[in-house]
Parts: sequence; C-alpha cells; structure tokens
Amino acid sequence: MSSEFRRRVAVVGATGLAGQQFLVALADHPWFELVALAASERSAGKPYAAAITRSDGSSSWLCDEPFPQRLAEMPVVEAARLDLSGVDLVFSAVESDAARQLEPIYAEEVPVISTASAFRYEDDVPILVPGLNLEHAALLKRQQRERGWKGFVAPQPNCTAIGLVIVLAPLARAFGLRAVVMTSFQALSGAGKSPGVAAMDILDNVVPYIPGEEEKVEKETRKVLGSLAGERIEPLDLPVSATCTRVNVRDGHFESVSVSLERAASPAEVCEALGSFGREFTDLGLPSSPSELIRVLEDPYRPQPRLDRDLNGGMTTVVGRVREDRALPHGIKLVLLSHNTKMGASKGATLLAEHLVQQGLA
Amino acid sequence: MSSEFRRRVAVVGATGLAGQQFLVALADHPWFELVALAASERSAGKPYAAAITRSDGSSSWLCDEPFPQRLAEMPVVEAARLDLSGVDLVFSAVESDAARQLEPIYAEEVPVISTASAFRYEDDVPILVPGLNLEHAALLKRQQRERGWKGFVAPQPNCTAIGLVIVLAPLARAFGLRAVVMTSFQALSGAGKSPGVAAMDILDNVVPYIPGEEEKVEKETRKVLGSLAGERIEPLDLPVSATCTRVNVRDGHFESVSVSLERAASPAEVCEALGSFGREFTDLGLPSSPSELIRVLEDPYRPQPRLDRDLNGGMTTVVGRVREDRALPHGIKLVLLSHNTKMGASKGATLLAEHLVQQGLA
Amino acid sequence: MSSEFRRRVAVVGATGLAGQQFLVALADHPWFELVALAASERSAGKPYAAAITRSDGSSSWLCDEPFPQRLAEMPVVEAARLDLSGVDLVFSAVESDAARQLEPIYAEEVPVISTASAFRYEDDVPILVPGLNLEHAALLKRQQRERGWKGFVAPQPNCTAIGLVIVLAPLARAFGLRAVVMTSFQALSGAGKSPGVAAMDILDNVVPYIPGEEEKVEKETRKVLGSLAGERIEPLDLPVSATCTRVNVRDGHFESVSVSLERAASPAEVCEALGSFGREFTDLGLPSSPSELIRVLEDPYRPQPRLDRDLNGGMTTVVGRVREDRALPHGIKLVLLSHNTKMGASKGATLLAEHLVQQGLA
Amino acid sequence: MSSEFRRRVAVVGATGLAGQQFLVALADHPWFELVALAASERSAGKPYAAAITRSDGSSSWLCDEPFPQRLAEMPVVEAARLDLSGVDLVFSAVESDAARQLEPIYAEEVPVISTASAFRYEDDVPILVPGLNLEHAALLKRQQRERGWKGFVAPQPNCTAIGLVIVLAPLARAFGLRAVVMTSFQALSGAGKSPGVAAMDILDNVVPYIPGEEEKVEKETRKVLGSLAGERIEPLDLPVSATCTRVNVRDGHFESVSVSLERAASPAEVCEALGSFGREFTDLGLPSSPSELIRVLEDPYRPQPRLDRDLNGGMTTVVGRVREDRALPHGIKLVLLSHNTKMGASKGATLLAEHLVQQGLA
Repeated sequence: MSSEFRRRVAVVGATGLAGQQFLVALADHPWFELVALAASERSAGKPYAAAITRSDGSSSWLCDEPFPQRLAEMPVVEAARLDLSGVDLVFSAVESDAARQLEPIYAEEVPVISTASAFRYEDDVPILVPGLNLEHAALLKRQQRERGWKGFVAPQPNCTAIGLVIVLAPLARAFGLRAVVMTSFQALSGAGKSPGVAAMDILDNVVPYIPGEEEKVEKETRKVLGSLAGERIEPLDLPVSATCTRVNVRDGHFESVSVSLERAASPAEVCEALGSFGREFTDLGLPSSPSELIRVLEDPYRPQPRLDRDLNGGMTTVVGRVREDRALPHGIKLVLLSHNTKMGASKGATLLAEHLVQQGLA
Repeated sequence: MSSEFRRRVAVVGATGLAGQQFLVALADHPWFELVALAASERSAGKPYAAAITRSDGSSSWLCDEPFPQRLAEMPVVEAARLDLSGVDLVFSAVESDAARQLEPIYAEEVPVISTASAFRYEDDVPILVPGLNLEHAALLKRQQRERGWKGFVAPQPNCTAIGLVIVLAPLARAFGLRAVVMTSFQALSGAGKSPGVAAMDILDNVVPYIPGEEEKVEKETRKVLGSLAGERIEPLDLPVSATCTRVNVRDGHFESVSVSLERAASPAEVCEALGSFGREFTDLGLPSSPSELIRVLEDPYRPQPRLDRDLNGGMTTVVGRVREDRALPHGIKLVLLSHNTKMGASKGATLLAEHLVQQGLA
Repeated sequence: MSSEFRRRVAVVGATGLAGQQFLVALADHPWFELVALAASERSAGKPYAAAITRSDGSSSWLCDEPFPQRLAEMPVVEAARLDLSGVDLVFSAVESDAARQLEPIYAEEVPVISTASAFRYEDDVPILVPGLNLEHAALLKRQQRERGWKGFVAPQPNCTAIGLVIVLAPLARAFGLRAVVMTSFQALSGAGKSPGVAAMDILDNVVPYIPGEEEKVEKETRKVLGSLAGERIEPLDLPVSATCTRVNVRDGHFESVSVSLERAASPAEVCEALGSFGREFTDLGLPSSPSELIRVLEDPYRPQPRLDRDLNGGMTTVVGRVREDRALPHGIKLVLLSHNTKMGASKGATLLAEHLVQQGLA
Repeated sequence: MSSEFRRRVAVVGATGLAGQQFLVALADHPWFELVALAASERSAGKPYAAAITRSDGSSSWLCDEPFPQRLAEMPVVEAARLDLSGVDLVFSAVESDAARQLEPIYAEEVPVISTASAFRYEDDVPILVPGLNLEHAALLKRQQRERGWKGFVAPQPNCTAIGLVIVLAPLARAFGLRAVVMTSFQALSGAGKSPGVAAMDILDNVVPYIPGEEEKVEKETRKVLGSLAGERIEPLDLPVSATCTRVNVRDGHFESVSVSLERAASPAEVCEALGSFGREFTDLGLPSSPSELIRVLEDPYRPQPRLDRDLNGGMTTVVGRVREDRALPHGIKLVLLSHNTKMGASKGATLLAEHLVQQGLA
C-alpha cells in the first residue's frame, strides 16, 4: 500500500480489554505503526508486559489471540502525559470518564478514534460506522474550527448499536423505516473491563437489564442513520425500542429485530438489499475490512454466536431468519449477529481509522 | 377437601419427561388418586421402576424431585389397552402423534387433560388456561354431543404460549390489544423428550430457531384470548409476531414482549392490571394453584430464570421491566418468565383439571 | 427443645455471602435468636436491607433462598464496635484478615464460631467438624486459660477439606490411612465474596489453580484427623496430595479421591464403613443435622453436583463409585460431593454451634 | 515434498463427527489425495453435501472449520462395498462394531489407520502414537504374515489415553514409572457421535462416569508404553488408576495426574524431560506435526482448555503445575491438556499415517 497512508499511532488505555484488542488489531498492520502505549498512572513507567502482570504473577492479557511478544518491553506512559510529538493518530480505549478528560487533550494535536461514549452525543461529533455514514465526517471540520483543534474526536457506536445500524442502513435506504423493536442477547465480553459478569450470576440464567444500554442503542441508531444538514446531523425520526439482556455467551451480540418499513418489501427483497449493501466500501480493500459488510444466511438455525461470530474475522454482520412480521405495518423481522469485540470494538475502530486515512480525512 | 372432588386418575405417557412431571404433580394430591400408569408397548408389563431403568442400569428419571418410591412397583400398562373401568380422568403426556390416536379412545369414556398439541386447533376443542378462559369449556359439551363421547379432550397451550397469554389476558381486558411482538429465550427442558438439546450445540451459544414453535405461539395466543360465540371460539383478531430461540438455561422460558394497546396506559396502570389479575381464581385455593397468577417485580434486574422460576412452585408468571414502548402506538414493553415444566406443563395441566373438577365440568 | 439451649447470637460479616448464608441458616432457628448484625464501617448504621442495596438500587442478596424480610429493618453495627452485652455467641463470616483482628475481641467475652481460616493453624485452636472430632474441643479450655478469654474461637475447616475429612474419618478409624491423592472440581460459590469467578474465565473452561487451597486441604485434613494429646492435637501422619481446580458449577464441591489404606478392605467393606458412620451424632437430632452424615450411592453416574448437592439440605456428603485402586497399596478410590455453601460453610458452622451448645461447651 | 509420499486415500465413516474431522485434516494435504468417501448404506449414493443434510434441511456438519465445499458433490459409497482399486490407504472413523466388520476387509488390500477401538487389544495390533512408539509398528508385518493381508490395521489410542501416554513416555524413559493415578475432566466432543451429551445433563454439573473409559485408559497406557519383544508387545508393568469424568467444556481433555517414579526427580528435572521430548520426531516436519509434542507452562493458572487447547493446531499436549506429590514414593503431580478432536482423533491419525508413510511402512 502507498506510503501516504502510513501513520504513527498511540493506543491509550492500552492495558484494558479494549486496549489489548487494539494491540491485536494493530499487530503487523500495513499502515499503522504502534509507537506509544499509554495507560493510567498505576501502569506508567512499566514495560507493557509488567503492566499487565497481576500481583500474583499471572497475566491479565484477556484476548484469545496470543500476547504480542514484541511489545513486552515497550514502556507504558501515563495517559495524561502522552507526548504526541511523534504521533499521528491516537486510538482511545479508555472508560468514558477518562475519555472526557483525555480525548480533548489529544485532539488538540491529532485525530482521536475512540471506542468510548463520552463525546458521542455532542452536536459537533459524528458517530461513524465504516461503510455507512462517511458523509457525517463533515462534522470533524466543524470540531476543528469551533474547538480550535488540529485533530478531532471520532467515536464509533456502542457495540450493540453497531450491528443494528449496519442492518438498518440498507433497509432505510431501500424501503424507509417507520419503527424498530429490538431485543438483544448480549455476550459476556461486552460487559467490558475485568471482572465483568460474575459466573454465578449468569450460569443457567439470563439477566434482563444492562444499565444505560437501551438508551444508547436508541439514541445512537437515530444519529448514525441521520442525515447531514450543513455541519449538523439531523437524527432520523425513527422510534427505536430496545430491550437489552445478557446471556451466557462469550462473544457475539445476537439481536432479534422487527422493523416496520415505509414501503412494503418481501423477505427476498430485504435479503437482496442486505446482501448487496456496502460493496463500494468493501471494494476499497482496506486492511481490516471484511469482504462483505453483511452476510445473509438461509439456514433457519443460523446465525449462532459460536458458529458465526468469527466470519471474516468478526467484521461481517450475519443475518438470518428474514421473515414477514405481521404485527407491524410493512413488517419484516430477522435476527442478526455482530462480533462485539471485533467489528463492535477496537478492530472496527481500526477499520474506521483506515477509512478516514484513505479518504484523506485523518 | 370435599370428597365430591375425588377422582381416580391415569397418566398416559408416564415414562417420559412430561409423564414423570405428572407423577410429581400428583404425589400426595388431595383429590386425585393415581390408579394407572400407561406407556408405549415397550414399557408395558413392567413395574414402573423397571420401565424407567435404562439397559445399563441407570435411571431415566429426569425430574429434579426425587423418584416417588411408592410407584416403584406399580405396573405400567400399554397405552392402547388402558382399561378405563376404574378411571375417572386421564392425564395425557404423550407426543402429538400418539395423542391423535389415543386421546379419542379415552375421551369416549372419561375426560382427558392433555399437554399434547394434537387437538388444540380443532374447532370443538378449547385451549384452556387455568384462571383465564374457563368459559371456553363450553366447547367440551359440543365435543361430547358431536363426537358421541362421554368424556372430552382438553389441551393446555404450548409452554411458550402460556406465559404470554397469562400476561396478555389482563391487558386485553383492561386496555385492548392491537399487536404483539415477542422474542423468547427458551429453556433446555422445553425441548421435550430425551435427549433434547445437545450440550455441544448450546454451550457458549444461542440457537435462533425452534421448528413450529412460532406458529404455535401465534395461533394459540389468538385462540386462548378469543371470545366464545355460541359453541365456537372466535380467535382474537390480534397480530402476534414471535421469534423463538433456545438459550443455555435449564428451566424457565423468558420472553421479551412489546405490546401495542388499543387504549393508552401508563406502565403503572399496566403493572396494576397485571398484579391484580386472577384473584378470583387464586382465591379458589385449588390444590396446585399459586397464590398469585402474576407477580410484577420492580427491580430492573428481575425476573431472572434461575432466581425467579420457582416462585410459588413455578406456577406464577413473573413480570418485570414494564416500560413505555415508543416504537408502537400505545406501546408497552416488558419481560416475563414462565416455568415451562411447571405451569407450562404437567403441573399446569393438573391445575386445569382441578378447576374443571371444582366447577363440576370434569 | 429445652430452653437451656437458647442462645442470643450475632452474625459478623453479615452483608457478605457467608454472612447472608448464616442469616438463612438461622432463620426460624429453634435455639438461636439473632440479636445483632455486624459488618464493616461502610455498612454500619444502615438498616440491613439498605446495607445490601447497591448504589444502582439493586440488591446484593446472593442466596437462592429469599431475603428474610423480618431482618430488613434490623440495624447493622460496625464489627469493631459490636456490643456483646446481650450476646451469647458470635458467628463470624468475615475474611481472614478481618477475622484475625475481630475474633479475639469477641472471644474475650463469648464463643466465636468461625468460617474464617485466620486461627485454624494455631496450636490451641481446633478445627472442628460436627460429628467427627468433638474431643478436639478440649483445646477450647486451653484457649480460655492461656489467652484469658471467657469465650473461644472455634473455626470449621475449609469448604474443600470438610467433605474429604468426613469421608476419610471412618476409613481412618476402620482401616487406617497411609496416603491420599485428591483432585477437586470446585464450584463457583466457593470463590467467596463478590464478584468471585468471572464468567468469561470459566465458560467452556476449567481453571487448574486456586491459590492457597491445596495447602489448606492438606494441612487441615491432617489436623482434623489428628489425635488429642493432652491439650494439643497431634496431626495425623498422613501424606495428602491435593490438586484443586475450579469448574463451571454453581454449588457443590466434587472430589475424586484415591486412598491407600493401612489394612486391605474391599469396596463393599468401605461402603459399609462410610454408610454407617456418624449415626450416634445424627441420632442427636440437632436442628441443622442431616439424618445421615454420608450417603453412598450405587448408581455409577452419581453423585452429580446438580442432582445430589441438596440432599438433606446440603448437609450430607454423598459418595459414589467406590472401587479398588490398583495404583496404591490397599488402594480404594471414590468420588464425593459436599455442598460448599451448606455443610461447607455457614450451615455447617451452625450445626457445629448446636453441637457445642448441646454438649455444654458453648 | 517428494512425490514418493503421495497416497490416494479413502475416509470411511465420512459423515460422522470423526469422519468430518478427517476431511478437515486432509483438506489441502500435501501428500494425501482424498479419492473416496464411504459411509453406511443410508448415505450411500448421495453426494456428500446431501448425505450430511438432515430431513429438515439443516446441515449435520459438526466441525468448527467450514464445510469443504469442493467435497459437496463427491459421491458417498457404501462402506461395505468400497472399491479399493484406486485407493492406497484407508482412514477408518467408524464405530467399533462396524470397524470390526469393515477394517479387515480393507486391510486385505491396503493399510488402515483407525480411530476405532475394535482391534486395539489384539496381540498382533499395535496402538501407535506418533513420536512415541514407532518400533511397535513391527507388529504390522506380523499382521500381514499371519492374517494374509497386504495391508494392516493401525489404531491410535483412545482420546483420553493419548495425552496421558505422551506425558508418561518421557517420564518412563528418564525416571521409570511405578504407578499412575489420573482423574480426567473430559470434554463434550469426546462423547462422540450425535447427539452426545444432553445439555440438561451437564449444565451446572459434572458427570462422574463414562462407561468403559477407565478400562481403556488403563489398558492402552500399559500397551503403548510397553516394549517390543520379537513381534509381541510386552505391556509395561504399571498400575494405572483412572477416574474419568465429563465436564461442561466443548473441546480439550484436561487431566490431573499423579505419578510415582522409579527414581526421584525434581519438578525442574521433570519439566526438562517433558519439554525436550520428541524433538527428533517434530524435526521430521511432517505435514500435520506440531513443532513441539509437549509444551510445559509455568503460569500456575494454565493450561486451561479454552485458552490452550488450540496450541499448535491442537497437536501439542500442554502441561502445567508440575509439583512434588508427597503422597506417592518419588511422587510428581501435574495437570495436562490434550485436544481430543485434534491430536486425540482424526488429525492425530493423519499424523500417524504421515509417519508410517515417511518411514516407508505404509
């Protein structure tokens, strides 16, 4: 790939789960060279391997992928004191409170691609999904102008919202949307930082509530699908009803979705709209891009989290059971599966960064 | 209790899971005396303990409750040759195909309370839910008259439908129903007879399809909630959209339900309607009756299958997270939990029998 | 029961899991009247219901048994300031560090029955198991004399050791013991206080290490089975080799045990020794006592944690698969199941207190 | 690789789980060209894709690896009528009863590498483990001579035995073995053909018995570790005591092993013997060979089935927690993990075939 796309990148929040996933996503990346690791004061000054070693000597490396040994000796710096002089781009994987403090500091100098929710609901901040709404990146210029930043903050959506919007976008475009009812079956790894969900709470069980999740899904879906009006996003006028639950599945958010369309469409037409969506984006061949944004399966027993979450490296949203929904006007229902720690987290954020870089926006 | 309610009962399909649950439900029953056990030809002639012993000597007793030792020596007779001369009532727990053959034979002589789906969709057969639609029992007379039977066949609904209709019934009565969208998280024990769901298929997984289940839920909901017109049931004109899935939970069907009401109601009004429902029925104090048909919980983390399924012996439908649903006109959403092998199976059928007996209908 | 056994009791560490289990074990207890609840400074001054309510309003009640409503308004006092003037006996359910500070303070005045390990290895402290080694209680006098206490500290063993020693005791008595090799499959609830084992760590997995556990099992087994020499316990000279693992089971520690006996014994003789053990103790009919200390099952598929852990309220150790072990001299092998949060924790400690009270020792 | 190693191979039992795993192991194999698929009469005559399609249209493909599309149209022939004219080698993945009938038929013409137990205990049949006991292949000549076969039957051991013998072999060689006590935690996929273990039986549970498994482990361990005496194998005179259990883990047999050595060895010496074992074999660089037969981990929390089973494609036995075992003379204990459907099944059998071919024995 052309050297014009090369960037020196820093990962902030590098010791947590999302940060570790960035390290995996960036390993051997053809464009992005990892030059700095930042974390909280507690980890600062340690080599990375030491920073993720617990007091009892065990490792807190949480990814299934092996620990990238070449980073073992890389020093971890304190996030609040990250020196950006040799950094072109920051990946932020910190919790929302920390993000609110840290991301503006970085954005003064360089673009910040973030998995945190801190800035998602600001007027001048887009929620970007690779292949879906690049036009919303127009707001990044407004951020720079109004906030006096050289960089910007570009967050991706919540890991439950991302699969939903990827499936709703082609339906909105082809048939229009009137209403959405969604019930999620969310994976354990979506509960974020250690220790996450306690085994005693989820064994032989379903937990019917995830604080704040439903509001995020509803709000972010409308914003991502919204239209750009000058340098503002007009959220889509779409009632979205989410019920978010936790199930005993390691990875892969599964969702049962009922949609009321503006114009009637058969299941076959819906499948066609879904399956053909995003080809112009996937044809770009970005380093982290799947070969297809959406895969529609015909086998009624699919998708299943364990069998389908890793399709195309976890970057493809898998849809099944597309059927008429007679309870809604022009109703269609389906199930979908989105890998919450791949497309829904750091690897998705990496793909977003690639798109912005390739388009000359970062 | 008055001796007028005493009945000598037989359990058909006694060696299977549902049949075993009947034996548990009937143990020490104050009204019903178990006088006969019937099963397929393979088990016929054996003492019950031997009939549920596998060739390797292990037991195929599947209930959590201990095996009722006093039945160990009771002989199992062939279902097709069950002598009804000393039997007042039959509980049928056979598969649907067998039910179609056997239940009419028994119904010629005595009432048959059935967990099977075989006759649920016949014009002259009600689907009865204790405390909900006793008026539909008027069809039992029509069965007797038109089919020339002394008894009748009275099936209960599918184990996924029963929790849903119990919750919908008070809403239909108080506010009217326009549409229902439901996603189920069904337990392993609902998969019926051995071996059921394979552990390898459900560990770390969700299975998005249960053949025939969605159609049953949609059809049975409309029939149970329908109105009696002479000796016919007029199904409720209600679009019901079900997505039925299997999760790795032992017992307890959990459902996420969105309802469009005819008349607007606040979540508080809905909770009131649900919580006060069925008092006249529970006040009857029938032997297998819960003290409340529906319990509404305020803790947003509840109900959970493991924590709440056994409330009142698994006979109460537990509701939580009652909220406005902005995606539907006059929308309300909630989650519910119904114990699929208690209220949803043999113990629910036993309660139904008690109600019919107490009302002089069986 | 005679009023001579009535005691006013306090539970210290009342808000944690073990403390909650004491509240369950003591509910409606015929002898023990719960008069005080103590916990850390953070909970002090709150009514108990408020003390176990999280900041988001949800409850941290962790037991399967329902929350005892009559305790809702009972005030929680700070453990370090517990007023013992109206208290006859203290149940201690705090972590080991806190136990080391707090238990001596209480023991100055009253007997302390403890689930903590803090004092288990002191020379003048017995590790008592109901029905096994009451003679070791002679050390309690020594504690009083040497430490100048009116009360004493009486700990029960670790939850993994207790099932093992209950099974080894009759074998030691009948046949003598030369060596023990044990591999445990420990339940999630044994990991103690919230949040315990993370679901992501144990789903589809086995964890082969529990820090400190193997040493506890080895040391405590020798001490419990030791002999009283004056006012000292001579540990049994028995090599015990433990491998302690965690599996994805909610309750019930399962153990695979191989024993080398001093004198050869057939599996039938071993079963006889096990099944008949402890009758003189169970015949006492103490309030929390099981009707049998050990149950031996013949079905090779048993015991299983889910099916057998609740036998006799979780107070019976269940043994199965008693066979010859040809790898050891006079070898016998078996599997056992012990309910780690019943006999292995607060309910076992309650039974221990009952025994001490009934024997006039507390 | 040299064309002298090219072989045309058939897979018998191709539609079952082990057979499917052979198809995965043989996909793009540099030496072995898959030329025939055989199965029972029921599948015969169908294209492979149709043969693994259930009556409801869903697929019975059970591997995690995707279905090899290029085999979709390959016809399945009846196992009893497999034409061996263009076949150089047969991989047999049928159940033991079928193996007893079929394998001699094939062995008349060509070598048969088998995962079945049917012939493992015959005097003239070795149980071969790649890298361990190639000298036992001398028995293959005796088979040919005495039975009048052009080929032979070469079975691999049981999937629980294989990890154990791989770990015991270097210990036997370096220190001698006196006795072995092993407790297994076996994965669900080891239960073989569909439907395997029922989810209801293993959720929140451990099953302490797997019929026949312990006998196989004990017998096969002695035979694999035995010495060749002429054309006979003298089993190692080693008491092996196995307790085999099932846990709720998808793949990877975990074992807790205590060994009494002939000569004392420190844990460090044992680790050295284990870690250096089999280099001459792995240096051959056979197509399915791992780069190391045994990996010893120092982290006491490892190996864990989910984290470590896929090391080197599931072909390396992973050992951890090597410690002194004071209960046994010259005792050492450790835990090990072996991938039961990779090294323990078809991929291990493929590696065995590679070794025999490379050595000019097949």
